[in-house]
Amino acid sequence: MSEIRKDIITGNQVIIASERGKRPHDFKLPTEEKRATSCPFCSGNEQLTPPEAAALRPTQSGPDTPGWQIRVVPNKFAALHPEEEFWEREEGIYSYCSGKGSAEVVVESPDHYSNLGEKGVEDITALLEMIEQRYRTLLLDREIKYVQVFKNFGPTAGASLAHPHWQIMATPMIPDLPRQELTGAAAYYRKYGSCVYCSILAAEKESGERVITANQSFVAFCPYAARYPFESWIVPVSHGSTFGRLTRTELRELACLLRKMIAIFELEFRSPYNLIIHTRALDDRHRDYYHWHIEILPRLTIMAGFELGTGIMINPTAPEVAAGILREKYPDY
Amino acid sequence: MSEIRKDIITGNQVIIASERGKRPHDFKLPTEEKRATSCPFCSGNEQLTPPEAAALRPTQSGPDTPGWQIRVVPNKFAALHPEEEFWEREEGIYSYCSGKGSAEVVVESPDHYSNLGEKGVEDITALLEMIEQRYRTLLLDREIKYVQVFKNFGPTAGASLAHPHWQIMATPMIPDLPRQELTGAAAYYRKYGSCVYCSILAAEKESGERVITANQSFVAFCPYAARYPFESWIVPVSHGSTFGRLTRTELRELACLLRKMIAIFELEFRSPYNLIIHTRALDDRHRDYYHWHIEILPRLTIMAGFELGTGIMINPTAPEVAAGILREKYPDY
Repeated sequence: MSEIRKDIITGNQVIIASERGKRPHDFKLPTEEKRATSCPFCSGNEQLTPPEAAALRPTQSGPDTPGWQIRVVPNKFAALHPEEEFWEREEGIYSYCSGKGSAEVVVESPDHYSNLGEKGVEDITALLEMIEQRYRTLLLDREIKYVQVFKNFGPTAGASLAHPHWQIMATPMIPDLPRQELTGAAAYYRKYGSCVYCSILAAEKESGERVITANQSFVAFCPYAARYPFESWIVPVSHGSTFGRLTRTELRELACLLRKMIAIFELEFRSPYNLIIHTRALDDRHRDYYHWHIEILPRLTIMAGFELGTGIMINPTAPEVAAGILREKYPDY
Repeated sequence: MSEIRKDIITGNQVIIASERGKRPHDFKLPTEEKRATSCPFCSGNEQLTPPEAAALRPTQSGPDTPGWQIRVVPNKFAALHPEEEFWEREEGIYSYCSGKGSAEVVVESPDHYSNLGEKGVEDITALLEMIEQRYRTLLLDREIKYVQVFKNFGPTAGASLAHPHWQIMATPMIPDLPRQELTGAAAYYRKYGSCVYCSILAAEKESGERVITANQSFVAFCPYAARYPFESWIVPVSHGSTFGRLTRTELRELACLLRKMIAIFELEFRSPYNLIIHTRALDDRHRDYYHWHIEILPRLTIMAGFELGTGIMINPTAPEVAAGILREKYPDY
């Protein structure tokens, strides 16, 4: 079983997933991708994963058999566990809580070599709907406080399997970074009476120098204090604090935007990246000033001693330069 | 010129070092090490670096010539610049400051293939003295607020050159993580009337389960909320808030401890790591509750979407297990 420990100095939390109890030589740095024949996410290999939690498949096909279009399975190497009860304990001067939560994998496609950037908008819309549905389902557990949706692309960005997939992890507390965002957004709201993300959208649309593209529902831009080269945010135009309540139009417009962004990063730049959905923690207090959005963090640089010691990233590509290069890919905008 | 931008939501800072203005395909992920013939840190290649800032060399030898034992040079690709004036500005809703600061490289040895783990305690003591001297020198600039000393080992931990070296970076503000440590340590001090690090040392020495080794002046242990597998801290027994004021005995005992730790991580585990000196920011207010120390962060896992989205690390090796494995290497303790 895992546990979540709190650093007594910084208050930051860490998941100790010690069932694996690895020794130094057990760690392998990213190398070759698994071949499709042994890939647990490929169609025909359904028995290599835990039983599916959900799937988009023809009604006549049974669970854990081929024929699906999208498949959701518990992570075989989950760091957090849904069957665990939530408790908090102290151990001398330290404190920790149980590793309650969940870790699911959303397999984008039965095809190992498929790419969202080449798929139809309908396929991506269906994927987003499935992710929204799992997001809402996981939040039904009253002991869950936050659900983190993300996609890792490329072994150096943490994708240990090449078969395209997203991940959804649920945690029993509001994690450190979402809490920091909430605190900052609340402070801005108290001072200026508006959502900080809405202010950013207005400022970015007015200057235009960091905007990549936009449609009726979303704006894509490189943020002013971009931590990663080509870091790109996709922010909904209408204020909404939580992912999981998209309209049909928003879903389709997000799918259009994501398809192109993913084609650029995966197929053209071939850049490892993490795509992260930032959403309000399960607490209605934050509704007015938190604004859900997507962050794409290309992993072209390495965090080293300076970044890990100071918490300050060094970004060698100014977001204005990055946005200019990305904007060239959207001649219609 | 670079600039330091502030994230309007989280308050976190980022260095935009845009003079390099890289396009996506300009980024190279770590591959082969440079050969010694073209390595700018090797003896005989002194002309490949900017003029040296300091060196341990025979008095009869001139600067930037061979014969040195330790050599300090400005980083050729510095993200912060000493000649820059410090200023703060606003740009609409955003704020930023100049990239004032410095970035120095301390070359451990003229020999490309040398290893601290195989050197004499006197050599390591001399290296630590040189680092202390540069640390104190950089703090003489009144616009400098923090000096970060670190060593990156291995390309995946950010060491772009294999020739063993440390780095010292000076920043014009207290960075985010040191500020977070100061805030947490101050809160603990107000609540309990003691230094949180002194409390941790007492608790760790009493339980012993996470202690690796110790001598009169230092204790090495795996911290309770270790973020990285085999994360190890070296903490001075006497309360002292800042690196740079070590006694002769402390210097020698730190050299003994470091020598063995580096031998384990570099030669035996062959693990990439970042070694980071945490020290008080330049402000006497924090003297009573901040406690300088060294953190060794082995980079055996990859930060992916969950870690970058939540700020929560997943550590697959419990620190008690890690400490047990590391303690085996110290049969005399």
